[in-house]
Parts: sequence; C-alpha cells; structure tokens
Amino acid sequence: MKISIIGAGNIAWHLAKALEQADMDIIEVYSRDRRKAKSITQELYQSDATNSLNFKDSEAELFVMAVSDNAIEEVAAQIELPEESILIHTSGSVPLEVLEITKKMNPDCILGVFYPLMTFTKGKNVAFRTVPICIEGDTSETTHILSKIAKKVSNEVYEVNSQDRKVLHLAAVFACNFTNHLFALSKEILNEEGLNFEILKPLISETLNKGMAAKHPAEVQTGPAVRRDSNTIETHRQLIKDDEDLLKVYDTLTESIQDWHK
Amino acid sequence: MKISIIGAGNIAWHLAKALEQADMDIIEVYSRDRRKAKSITQELYQSDATNSLNFKDSEAELFVMAVSDNAIEEVAAQIELPEESILIHTSGSVPLEVLEITKKMNPDCILGVFYPLMTFTKGKNVAFRTVPICIEGDTSETTHILSKIAKKVSNEVYEVNSQDRKVLHLAAVFACNFTNHLFALSKEILNEEGLNFEILKPLISETLNKGMAAKHPAEVQTGPAVRRDSNTIETHRQLIKDDEDLLKVYDTLTESIQDWHK
Repeated sequence: MKISIIGAGNIAWHLAKALEQADMDIIEVYSRDRRKAKSITQELYQSDATNSLNFKDSEAELFVMAVSDNAIEEVAAQIELPEESILIHTSGSVPLEVLEITKKMNPDCILGVFYPLMTFTKGKNVAFRTVPICIEGDTSETTHILSKIAKKVSNEVYEVNSQDRKVLHLAAVFACNFTNHLFALSKEILNEEGLNFEILKPLISETLNKGMAAKHPAEVQTGPAVRRDSNTIETHRQLIKDDEDLLKVYDTLTESIQDWHK
Repeated sequence: MKISIIGAGNIAWHLAKALEQADMDIIEVYSRDRRKAKSITQELYQSDATNSLNFKDSEAELFVMAVSDNAIEEVAAQIELPEESILIHTSGSVPLEVLEITKKMNPDCILGVFYPLMTFTKGKNVAFRTVPICIEGDTSETTHILSKIAKKVSNEVYEVNSQDRKVLHLAAVFACNFTNHLFALSKEILNEEGLNFEILKPLISETLNKGMAAKHPAEVQTGPAVRRDSNTIETHRQLIKDDEDLLKVYDTLTESIQDWHK
C-alpha cells in the first residue's frame, strides 16, 4: 500500500518508519515547513517532502494525518485527495466526525482513526509491535482495511469507537501524565533537602510491578492514607505546609485513597 | 552477629531471611501471637519463636524492631535487653528519638534506625541487594556498625538522619502510593466503559522509563495539561462531571502541572 504522511512531528517520524518497515511505501511527507518534512523523508527509502495539501495527483491510497489535535480539522478542510482515498488521523481525543469536512472537497473518500496509544520521542526507537493501535473506520469495510494495516505494524490492534477512545485517553492521562507529574513533585521534594531521587527508583519500580501484576492496583495500595495513619499524614502535611499547591495535591490524593478504601 | 527480630509482618519476614542469607544468626523472632512468630522461624535455619519481650538472657546483640509505626514506642518501652545491646527500628516515618524510652530499662543500650526503602509482600521475593537501606545511629560508632550490617545485605546503603528520612518517606508517598492510586482510578475509568486496563500497560511502562531516564521527570511531561489544551481538558472534565472525587483529582493535578510548567 502507498501512503502519504501529513505532519512531521514525533508520531509522523515513528509511524512513517514503522509502516515502511512493514513493507509499505511512504510516497510523500507533508509539513507546512518543507524542511521539517525533509528531515523525515531523508530517513525513508524513497519519498518526497511537500508543503502542499493538494494530493490530487498523488499515487498514495492512504493519507495519515499525524498533526496536533488542534490542526486536524483545519488540515481536513484543506486537503485534496485522489479518488477513493482513505484519510485517517492519529489522535486519542479527536472524534472521527471531525474528518467529515474533508468530504466537501473529496466526496468519495473514506475516513478513519489510527491511534497508537504510546508516547513517542523523536529519535528514540520504540518496539512498535508492542504499541497498542486503536482503529476506527467510518464503515466496517474501512475498519477492516485499517485493521489489516495496523496488524502489519503491531501485535496489539483494538477496534475502539470515538467515545471509548476519549475514555481511553482520559484514563491514560490519569495513569501516565499525572503519575509522571507526581514523580516530578517527588524529585522536587527530595532536591529541596539535597536528597537524591535515585534512592527512590527501586521502590518506584517495585510499586509499579506490584500494581501491574495485581488483579487491581487498589489491592496492593500501601502507605499512610490507606492505613489511616493520621500521625504520619499530619507529619507529612507539616513538612509541606508552606507550599499550597503541593499540600493540595497531597490532601486531594490522600482523601481520594481514603474515599476508595472506606 | 546474632540477631533477634521483633515483629512477624512483611518486613520481619524479608529482613530475617536477608540477614540469615548474609551469614547472620537469627536467634529469636518475637510476636505477641507466638504462632505468627513461628511462621517465620519455620523458614529460618535455627531460631525460637517467642511472645515475651524479656530478652535479658538472649544471646543476640542486635534487636531489630519490625513492627507497625504505632507500636514502636510501646514495644521500646517494654523491651528488656542484655547489656550493651543495639536496638533498631525499621520505619520510614518514626524518628530515632522515639527509642530513647528503652534506656529507662536498658541504660547501656545503643539505638539506631535501619529503614529498607521498599514495599514488601509476604512470600514474594525481592532482590534484597538492590533495596536501598537508610541507616541512622545514636552515635557515629552505632552508624558505623549499622552500615557494616546493611552492606552485608544490600549494595545501596545511605546514611539518612531522622528529618531527611521523613522527607524521603513523604517523597515516596508521592512517587509510589499516589501513583498506584492513579493506576487504580485509571483502571476504574476504563472498567466503567467495559475497556481493558491491559491496553494502557505499554504506555504506562514507557512513560515510567522516560521519566526515570530523564534528567528530571518534568522534562518529559506530555498530555493536555502541559500543552494547555483546554478543549481536551474540558472534554475530559465532562466525562467525569458526575464523580466529584475523580473530578477533584483531575483538576488538582491539571492545575499542579500547569503551575509547574508556567
């Protein structure tokens, strides 16, 4: 299958490579800034960098939008596609319907979502076969096509509709963005006293392993909140009493744990 | 060195085994409930189960209190030790001074803390050599003795005073208890929609790896909060608007991320 990639960020970089390695041809890479597109095409077997959204004469059959969530609708409104093309986006939080606007200029196109549930860093390889890919098509036939493509690059392919994808994205924010921020706060607490975050890493890793291996992470919850150890909680609160933001995080999560385990 | 263990919980179970494997002799294991002590002595080479805190005639030189935080002072007030014994506790949040009460009955004893910074589950082996051990002695000589013992069981031995140990414990609550609770909330969000938490695990693991490998976890923060993507944040808030507790966690952490990255 011949593919064009719209966008030149981290997802574009990783997806283009994964698709190419799965024997698909990346024909074009688009970016408003052609040099950015070029930074990706350079690493591919044979593809052109472009800064035009007019793909009328493209040989590609699949157009993969890997642009920021806010830019999806704007690009979808401008893109010109060959007949019977597939246009997909790769976002966790944008519903499929947003692409409908594309039909104004390309009435016979079909639409879908191809959401790799992963955090990508440019230049850092990811074992793509283990990346969950959530697909959604505007018809069951589209879903079938996307499923076939997704299975070429990953062992973890899920059909997820727009509503469920939104929920998945929300759950990912709790499990990943928020936890990473807690690591940042924890490191800061230690740094303020000249203590080294390294000392916590074995515990962090064991806590994660236990949580993931448990039937439910709540079953292996430890610490003063779940024990209702009010002395320790008060000692902790005293330590951070001058940092309103930190204290609010501490109190909110402590209450939430106690709410859960009552 | 000959050692007695006071307590029969998870830490006692793991510590007794680790000390024995490092060629120390566990002479006695105490629990108020002698059967509980017995469940540990059964797994050791040769040691007695006891429910008496009178160790006047014990051959042990080191007495390790591995009881709950709340019980430390009570046990310290009751214990009777042979001359020139060392009494230590294993808690992250209890200061060394709490043991001073022991001197009333045992004036020549020396005191310390031996805090393994790890979460232990009975029956689940931990690579003890990688467990950070935070030690503190009432004199530099005590610290030196505890350091020698700690190095026999772990490669990661740190001298940490009571104040810093409190801070370390607080940081561990943020990095471990709170993150584990966020995994629980995340799983619940998915379960409510019939979605499987398994799908998030590769992302969770990659997020952790990135955070730990970064110079600071804050540098690799992603998601709608740090991007100030108010549309996505509002979509998420709508999804959980009926769950006050969940919404409070979402808002508090979102604000805290934005506070940090402003």
